[in-house]
Amino acid sequence: MKHALEMARLTIGQTHPNPSVGAIVVKNGRVVGVGTHMKPGEPHAEVFALQQAGDEAKDADIYVTLEPCAHYGKTPPCAKAIIDAGIKKVFVATLDPNPKVAGRGVQWLRDEGIDVEVGLHEEDAIEINKDFMHFMRNKRPYVTIKTAVSLDGKMTANSGDSKWITGEAARRDVHENRHRHDAILVGIETVKHDDPQLTTRLPHGGINPIRIILDTHLSIPFHAKILTDQAVRTIIICGNHASESTEKQLNEIEHIDVLRMPTDEIDLNDLLAQLAEDKIMSVYVEGGSKVHSSFIHKQLFDELHVYMAPKLIGGPSSKPFFNQNGFTEVSQSVKLTFESIEQMDDDLKIIAKPKR
Amino acid sequence: MKHALEMARLTIGQTHPNPSVGAIVVKNGRVVGVGTHMKPGEPHAEVFALQQAGDEAKDADIYVTLEPCAHYGKTPPCAKAIIDAGIKKVFVATLDPNPKVAGRGVQWLRDEGIDVEVGLHEEDAIEINKDFMHFMRNKRPYVTIKTAVSLDGKMTANSGDSKWITGEAARRDVHENRHRHDAILVGIETVKHDDPQLTTRLPHGGINPIRIILDTHLSIPFHAKILTDQAVRTIIICGNHASESTEKQLNEIEHIDVLRMPTDEIDLNDLLAQLAEDKIMSVYVEGGSKVHSSFIHKQLFDELHVYMAPKLIGGPSSKPFFNQNGFTEVSQSVKLTFESIEQMDDDLKIIAKPKR
Amino acid sequence: MKHALEMARLTIGQTHPNPSVGAIVVKNGRVVGVGTHMKPGEPHAEVFALQQAGDEAKDADIYVTLEPCAHYGKTPPCAKAIIDAGIKKVFVATLDPNPKVAGRGVQWLRDEGIDVEVGLHEEDAIEINKDFMHFMRNKRPYVTIKTAVSLDGKMTANSGDSKWITGEAARRDVHENRHRHDAILVGIETVKHDDPQLTTRLPHGGINPIRIILDTHLSIPFHAKILTDQAVRTIIICGNHASESTEKQLNEIEHIDVLRMPTDEIDLNDLLAQLAEDKIMSVYVEGGSKVHSSFIHKQLFDELHVYMAPKLIGGPSSKPFFNQNGFTEVSQSVKLTFESIEQMDDDLKIIAKPKR
Amino acid sequence: MKHALEMARLTIGQTHPNPSVGAIVVKNGRVVGVGTHMKPGEPHAEVFALQQAGDEAKDADIYVTLEPCAHYGKTPPCAKAIIDAGIKKVFVATLDPNPKVAGRGVQWLRDEGIDVEVGLHEEDAIEINKDFMHFMRNKRPYVTIKTAVSLDGKMTANSGDSKWITGEAARRDVHENRHRHDAILVGIETVKHDDPQLTTRLPHGGINPIRIILDTHLSIPFHAKILTDQAVRTIIICGNHASESTEKQLNEIEHIDVLRMPTDEIDLNDLLAQLAEDKIMSVYVEGGSKVHSSFIHKQLFDELHVYMAPKLIGGPSSKPFFNQNGFTEVSQSVKLTFESIEQMDDDLKIIAKPKR
Ligand SMILES: [Zn+2]
Ligand SMILES: [Zn+2]
Ligand SMILES: [Zn+2]
Ligand SMILES: [Zn+2]
Repeated sequence: MKHALEMARLTIGQTHPNPSVGAIVVKNGRVVGVGTHMKPGEPHAEVFALQQAGDEAKDADIYVTLEPCAHYGKTPPCAKAIIDAGIKKVFVATLDPNPKVAGRGVQWLRDEGIDVEVGLHEEDAIEINKDFMHFMRNKRPYVTIKTAVSLDGKMTANSGDSKWITGEAARRDVHENRHRHDAILVGIETVKHDDPQLTTRLPHGGINPIRIILDTHLSIPFHAKILTDQAVRTIIICGNHASESTEKQLNEIEHIDVLRMPTDEIDLNDLLAQLAEDKIMSVYVEGGSKVHSSFIHKQLFDELHVYMAPKLIGGPSSKPFFNQNGFTEVSQSVKLTFESIEQMDDDLKIIAKPKR
Repeated sequence: MKHALEMARLTIGQTHPNPSVGAIVVKNGRVVGVGTHMKPGEPHAEVFALQQAGDEAKDADIYVTLEPCAHYGKTPPCAKAIIDAGIKKVFVATLDPNPKVAGRGVQWLRDEGIDVEVGLHEEDAIEINKDFMHFMRNKRPYVTIKTAVSLDGKMTANSGDSKWITGEAARRDVHENRHRHDAILVGIETVKHDDPQLTTRLPHGGINPIRIILDTHLSIPFHAKILTDQAVRTIIICGNHASESTEKQLNEIEHIDVLRMPTDEIDLNDLLAQLAEDKIMSVYVEGGSKVHSSFIHKQLFDELHVYMAPKLIGGPSSKPFFNQNGFTEVSQSVKLTFESIEQMDDDLKIIAKPKR
Repeated sequence: MKHALEMARLTIGQTHPNPSVGAIVVKNGRVVGVGTHMKPGEPHAEVFALQQAGDEAKDADIYVTLEPCAHYGKTPPCAKAIIDAGIKKVFVATLDPNPKVAGRGVQWLRDEGIDVEVGLHEEDAIEINKDFMHFMRNKRPYVTIKTAVSLDGKMTANSGDSKWITGEAARRDVHENRHRHDAILVGIETVKHDDPQLTTRLPHGGINPIRIILDTHLSIPFHAKILTDQAVRTIIICGNHASESTEKQLNEIEHIDVLRMPTDEIDLNDLLAQLAEDKIMSVYVEGGSKVHSSFIHKQLFDELHVYMAPKLIGGPSSKPFFNQNGFTEVSQSVKLTFESIEQMDDDLKIIAKPKR
Repeated sequence: MKHALEMARLTIGQTHPNPSVGAIVVKNGRVVGVGTHMKPGEPHAEVFALQQAGDEAKDADIYVTLEPCAHYGKTPPCAKAIIDAGIKKVFVATLDPNPKVAGRGVQWLRDEGIDVEVGLHEEDAIEINKDFMHFMRNKRPYVTIKTAVSLDGKMTANSGDSKWITGEAARRDVHENRHRHDAILVGIETVKHDDPQLTTRLPHGGINPIRIILDTHLSIPFHAKILTDQAVRTIIICGNHASESTEKQLNEIEHIDVLRMPTDEIDLNDLLAQLAEDKIMSVYVEGGSKVHSSFIHKQLFDELHVYMAPKLIGGPSSKPFFNQNGFTEVSQSVKLTFESIEQMDDDLKIIAKPKR
């Protein structure tokens, strides 16, 4: 199963909206087929592994990191393929939380007299697809807030300058996270101030996440890079008072969708529900300070990544990442748990999660 | 030597203004005498160890964590005691930076034909007395800035509330640091706002550091605990425009000294030089925000201890620990190096030092 | 490359006489094809990976754990397949020591203008195929001596009893080693005394190594399990004075080959050369004491696995694993290096290699 | 208490027949006295610590690694000294198993109204004096068997040569063990064959253990180094048929005692009981093979130290460390538990204990 998990890990970030899955067929202690699901529309991991095994799949065992599917989608159900191949025993790391599967795959196999064992290395299997699992259970995307600050908690210096707060290793880690997330989200202030590309720039490429811009009044400048570079689908979220003519103009640009919310202000709960409809399972919130503050204040986040530089910036006009609103007493603060601290060159990466 | 260092560690924080020193006399692989310096006026470590060894000191080896003294102070020179006892070989962890000793102890021993080896576990020996070493070399105290913040860098919530930001383990660690420092320093705002005691409260007691209050205009209220509790010597620093009658009144209180600076505003360089005159070798700067900002801006600190709680407080009126002044561009910021990160119950303790 | 190595590790022990190889095709940071070589006659890893990648292989990168082949064997050369697929850059972990390849694969690719980088994670790639690498370089199999002893170095008790010296975990590890080796070798005494099966018995099966029996005089009993169970090819090695009629009888049994050496006694150097001719790249020498002693005395081994039980057996007739011959002075002894010590349940596994 | 244990560790091996004890007096978080027991006849640890504390002992706490004594021996009882000094609270790591103390010290203190807490870091305190504790509980010395072998379990090569089997680090470790043990024990064969000194030779000296020779027939040569060097008390054990005139001659040599057992052969149970009478609490059995075999066969040992060299010696006349007798079936063997394995330069040190 460890090898099957390794196979699944290969494709983290590229199978959206499907989970990453690996499969290995073993006969008499000999690996006779391996498979990993590559991208939507392509065969599932089990199918690749069974194809490679060919006749040797008869009476063999198969290790799968996620319960085999039981419904006809873009591809026929894997449970059927396993039965047809004559597999003797199936090891499943974890059940599929997708209501279309949810135990039916395992049931079908057992009904056909195949021995099924569930739970081998289950924790790892869940971790690999944590976004998918979270999405299926909660019907809203897994939200990660990311910020880069100095040791005194500042995102910018007095002038608003935020360049090079953290070093190369931290920046590269951010791009790896962009590759792994379905969508990236920033506020209109960030677009206006930095005119960012919001794409994944790793040494060997990487997948660009869908770009989501919170822009209540549709005030985005038409020369913004994210409107003109056509790099990836980009969704502009606005309130219901925003100009309809601007909306129309924006919708005409290729790759750009405007999503008008039914309220004046953007309600984050509504927004996440809408994104879930669109099969967006994970959102990487990159800022700025106002956007972070909203997600934090409503406690609508699952993970917080703080890249911390060994610098002291200070100053009354320099910005912390959580500023608006805030709490009157310490006892009202949002409680977290530190999950891990990692040194990245000179910087620290602190991962925290809301305390349950 | 490891055992001698262990002996020296026993008395960290209690030998001021002397360093912590340990000594062990060994004869034929048998420990025949141990000693540690207890407090000013009492015999040095070598003396205790030689006394216990008695006649067995003849032809024995002695391990000392710091170069034996060579001058007549409150006690006769240890180098002489070693010579008189008939010691054959002396192992010294590190030389004494005190100009009154500075190699003369070792020289004297060698002149008498005693074999001396310097440098065994030198790093540990320096670490044990880092304040003393720093003081002797730089003629100013070793300054440690301490602050407790939330993950978003806030010392207080909007109301100014700062209670219980960090947990029990972190607070206990602060008291251990008070025990180890010669002096604690806070600003008048902290005195007015919190009316703190600034004493060491460990399960088994602990030594109270000298209290230093920065109070440019001598506006300290006469009912402040630090004026009335008479727990330990307390120095109030004021500018040269402060009221002379208030100064007089304060000086009449037992344990209270007013130190008038020659300038209107308190110059931190001047202040540290004055404290050095007074043999204060280590200062623990506990705040508040304005005091921290001054020390940071002038880069007058040697260590920075940040206790970080897994909380998000936010808010425009909540205070970061470095606020005043600050820098216009990130490139101007004070550069640090992270020395260590330690989990303390739910909190983190981050130690950083100025980058050299 | 780490993932490609993981793919190669999947098939350690099952690709004989080919090495274990893994390949991964990556395009724009997205994995588009993975492959591992399954068994002789089946396509090489590169071919699987390129097939799965299909059109996406154009301008993609490929990571291979071993230099792609350049000659027409059972399958067409992989170098050609890579060129035809339009791959842009090839990462090779290590060159193939096989003289038919030996740099020619890389040369061919470069001649076609493809960028090739050699040496990524080379150490791991060599470790995965250490037998293959050793064999190609030295033209003799990689020899591992395995023994199980008590802490006082005994393989048996006085009665000759050797059952259950070590525990379950150690015995399982032995079966994993059988799976990984091309051949297992024992002496005729072991066959007569224990009548062993010498097969691989792991929870999910495993590959049986070729069985090699050293039987100078062809005195093997015809009812021995290894003659009657027909589990796997079995080679009986005899001296040139052994009975020709017995040889004929044995050769008539299915799966049994007799290999007659040109000398009266079996010369181990000759034997290993013969096995190399037969493409046997790794031999697991399981005993008994006399066989071990011969390999040790001639220093014809590359690794020594000692499973050591927390027992004291003692006794003059109990057997140590290296007994015959031996050395007169300690200084003449065979010098080793301890490579690793691992606890296996109650036992230790000590791996040593000849000191170079 | 950690510091007090450190004080006790200082004197391991030199306080025989007393245990190693450390004491620290703490007042208001300030160490005011430290003490360690140096050797028999000298004051106990508590006395040194209280002396140094002087008047400050009043209302202070004392940390002691072993229960303060309650009986008048060579020195007055420490419990009384603690009471007289006005100590407020006593922390005791572990009770004294010596029947003369055994809880009476603590009882006396409590009767005087002093607060006593027992059990702080008890495990460490027991480990420091494991010989003493074992002796007090079992009325026989703690027996450690030590041997140095090759990986194939040989103490000597065919010629009997045993020089330099293990390296420098292992040999030094043996001398540290000699320093820590009350007595060293070897058989007459070892004396005749190697003419050893059996003294402690560490860089800074070390204490020589009492030497015990098992010599049933008093056949020791009069020129043996251990008879002539007068380095330390040496006890020759003989059976009751040994020559009385030889016994007399031996007894006349300074430092030499002959101990005649009441049986023809030396009974090890009897012998250990006799050594216990003589307050010998720990015996380090260094060989040879016959002596080891007797102790192992009767299971009269508490620890087994095997220094294992990365060498293969082999040969029928080379000696394993447990040879005589031995067991017929593996199931009868002496069962052990591996306690630790440590690399010492090129060698291994394996510590095993009898399985309980
Ligand atoms: Zn499927
Ligand atoms: Zn001195
Ligand atoms: Zn190929
Ligand atoms: Zn006592």
